[in-house]
Amino acid sequence: IYENNDLEIKKLFKEVHFADVAEVLDEVSFDEAIYIIKLLDSEKTSEILTELDEDTREKILENLSAKEIADEVGEMDSDDAADIIGELSEERQERVINALEDDELAADIKELLSYQDNTAGALMAKELVKVYETWTVAGCMRRIRGQAKEVTRVHSIYVVDKEDKLVGRLSLKDLIIAKSDQKIAEISKAKVDAVNVNEDDEKVAKIMAKYDLEAIPVIDDNNVLLGRITIDDIVDVLKEEADKDYQMAAGISQDVEANDTIWELTKARLPWLILALFGGFISVSILGGFETAMDTYPALFFFTPLIAAMAGNVGVQSSAIIVQGLANDSLKGSLWRRLFKEVLQSLINGFVLAALLMSAGMLFLGFKVEIGVTVAISLISVIMIASIVGTFVPIILDKRGVDPALATGPFITTSNDIFGILIYFMIAKIILGF
Amino acid sequence: IYENNDLEIKKLFKEVHFADVAEVLDEVSFDEAIYIIKLLDSEKTSEILTELDEDTREKILENLSAKEIADEVGEMDSDDAADIIGELSEERQERVINALEDDELAADIKELLSYQDNTAGALMAKELVKVYETWTVAGCMRRIRGQAKEVTRVHSIYVVDKEDKLVGRLSLKDLIIAKSDQKIAEISKAKVDAVNVNEDDEKVAKIMAKYDLEAIPVIDDNNVLLGRITIDDIVDVLKEEADKDYQMAAGISQDVEANDTIWELTKARLPWLILALFGGFISVSILGGFETAMDTYPALFFFTPLIAAMAGNVGVQSSAIIVQGLANDSLKGSLWRRLFKEVLQSLINGFVLAALLMSAGMLFLGFKVEIGVTVAISLISVIMIASIVGTFVPIILDKRGVDPALATGPFITTSNDIFGILIYFMIAKIILGF
Repeated sequence: IYENNDLEIKKLFKEVHFADVAEVLDEVSFDEAIYIIKLLDSEKTSEILTELDEDTREKILENLSAKEIADEVGEMDSDDAADIIGELSEERQERVINALEDDELAADIKELLSYQDNTAGALMAKELVKVYETWTVAGCMRRIRGQAKEVTRVHSIYVVDKEDKLVGRLSLKDLIIAKSDQKIAEISKAKVDAVNVNEDDEKVAKIMAKYDLEAIPVIDDNNVLLGRITIDDIVDVLKEEADKDYQMAAGISQDVEANDTIWELTKARLPWLILALFGGFISVSILGGFETAMDTYPALFFFTPLIAAMAGNVGVQSSAIIVQGLANDSLKGSLWRRLFKEVLQSLINGFVLAALLMSAGMLFLGFKVEIGVTVAISLISVIMIASIVGTFVPIILDKRGVDPALATGPFITTSNDIFGILIYFMIAKIILGF
Repeated sequence: IYENNDLEIKKLFKEVHFADVAEVLDEVSFDEAIYIIKLLDSEKTSEILTELDEDTREKILENLSAKEIADEVGEMDSDDAADIIGELSEERQERVINALEDDELAADIKELLSYQDNTAGALMAKELVKVYETWTVAGCMRRIRGQAKEVTRVHSIYVVDKEDKLVGRLSLKDLIIAKSDQKIAEISKAKVDAVNVNEDDEKVAKIMAKYDLEAIPVIDDNNVLLGRITIDDIVDVLKEEADKDYQMAAGISQDVEANDTIWELTKARLPWLILALFGGFISVSILGGFETAMDTYPALFFFTPLIAAMAGNVGVQSSAIIVQGLANDSLKGSLWRRLFKEVLQSLINGFVLAALLMSAGMLFLGFKVEIGVTVAISLISVIMIASIVGTFVPIILDKRGVDPALATGPFITTSNDIFGILIYFMIAKIILGF
């Protein structure tokens, strides 16, 4: 698309937002991406790097020296820098950190890398504006002018005591409206939400979403202020969480993207398919056990896929509603009430569907009345059982500390297929007596 | 839990964050909720109202007079106020707006209510800090002290020309570091992202997430500044969007919650179940057409649920990956490349699963070799077709402007069930020749 005219490329990209440059780099060939990265200055490329696809970034980082990477991350906020260094091999991490010119940033990154994945510590940035409660507004403004240059966005100013323990917060607005000789302790808000550094990141996201916070300070067990988490990091956590639930519901076992390699995609898909295959085996055996019925009632066997499909669909509906309720903490009322509601609902759905099935089946497909009745009664029972299973499996999983979203995917479909077919043939045996 | 001791309740709730009070109110009986709402002062209750469940809020608003509601929304930001008034009947909307003491707020709410749902206009708030480019920093600080009291959070200060057209932006930080006699035009950033008031809200969410914006100004076609959207509103949009996709994948046709009435839940679930039932009918007819094969190869019929289930699972996996790729704008490469990738993947999965099936089926269930071979070949073909359908249906829907998430639910499962069974029996017919 473009000729190797360095100056023009430089000019072109200078005007463009770094997120857009990142998108271009994800598209172009790898050599071109490296070429462009080396062409632009590190202030811009460091921002581009944080926005790139993980795969593209990995390849680019492999082609930069430890020194070059250090120059890039030197321009970043500590959380982005730690994320990117965290993607490197341990040995390269060491070398990049040693190559950093800013010793404070190096120490911050080391600290951030030491926290476990998916905790508040791994998510937070060290950059924040901190003032001591004993300062005056005027002194504070002077100091903030210095600190704020390093912080991309000032959300809140955190007030600490002389032991660096968090005691309050302050907005820039409060500071601007205050008189210049007031003490910080007088104008700061003493009530400040904070999260522990070891808190789960999804929990942090929930807290910030619930209280509509734009930033939250992170403290250790002694209440000492360690860093802060901003809402843009939380948007990513929420997105990841939603993606994960969605993929689980679709039977994909790890975080994959359409552009991943065939090998990665297969690895993510095959395990659930094997599980489903074994479920299928069980249904084959069940059907095999009723082979004798085939001579008298061949039509019974035509309905097995229909019964299995309805069981699967109803089960997934029920479990999806529960999984979302659990995720939003919005499940109310006792388990008995829920059971009653689910049974009533499935009776309504079951009767409507059974009536449709009987009339259509006997009118258009010409099945005998006894087959119609058998299938209709089975359908109602299967829908009821499937919706109870779909409702309570996620609740039980959640109580045992397992992610309830597990229950929405092939797991619930497969087990409902098996239950459905078994119930269907047992009811048929009772009614038709083979 | 508590006796009717007004003072104690008041004291208890005074200390508690409004989001927590809202949670309590969602739990307690309706009379108690009304009682508590009337007890607390309107500054707190107005914030509680915005956090309540829609159902609880609706019931509470029904029991407040137009004047009482006007007092509540009078304390709110214009966007929250418009959301709540928007939930009332048209006639009550009119009365509440007329009862508002603040004429400016009333006008703002009227304006906000006039925008279409799911647009930037419906999402934005009118409160923002606006300065004219000709002002000096010192003058600006004075004016901001006035404006900022009305704005809960100052994200950016928007710079406009004398016709109120947006010309730049400024952060509080920039203002603090600037010299007091500088002109605003000198220190403001001329490049400012903005969205049109009629832009789709999901598009706005994407833009803000992509560029990591915490607030974005909203303009009309003439570039006149109308309002601003903050990232906490976007978090809600993203969450709703994820919930919608998830529910669609589970075959639930409208936004329901576990706590909705049985009637609402049935209405959301039944349509997809009826569709699945009709799909099931087609499979019954197909199987009925192959009835003659039953005498010679009864075992063939035992495998139909297994084949149908595998087709459904594979199809959902493929479509979920594509739907996520489309949602994240991360699908790259040509359709041919995608076809090639999908076929190769399904061949790998197919061969692994077919090998497992043949060995297990013949070893443990004692099926004949020709049945094993037939089922194995069918399984590979069905997996291939199902994954191609799962990949391309969402792509085609997306190109035609239909939400591709539609393709992940019962729709894809049902059609893959039918395709799967048809292919299976056709291959059986060719191999076994019945």
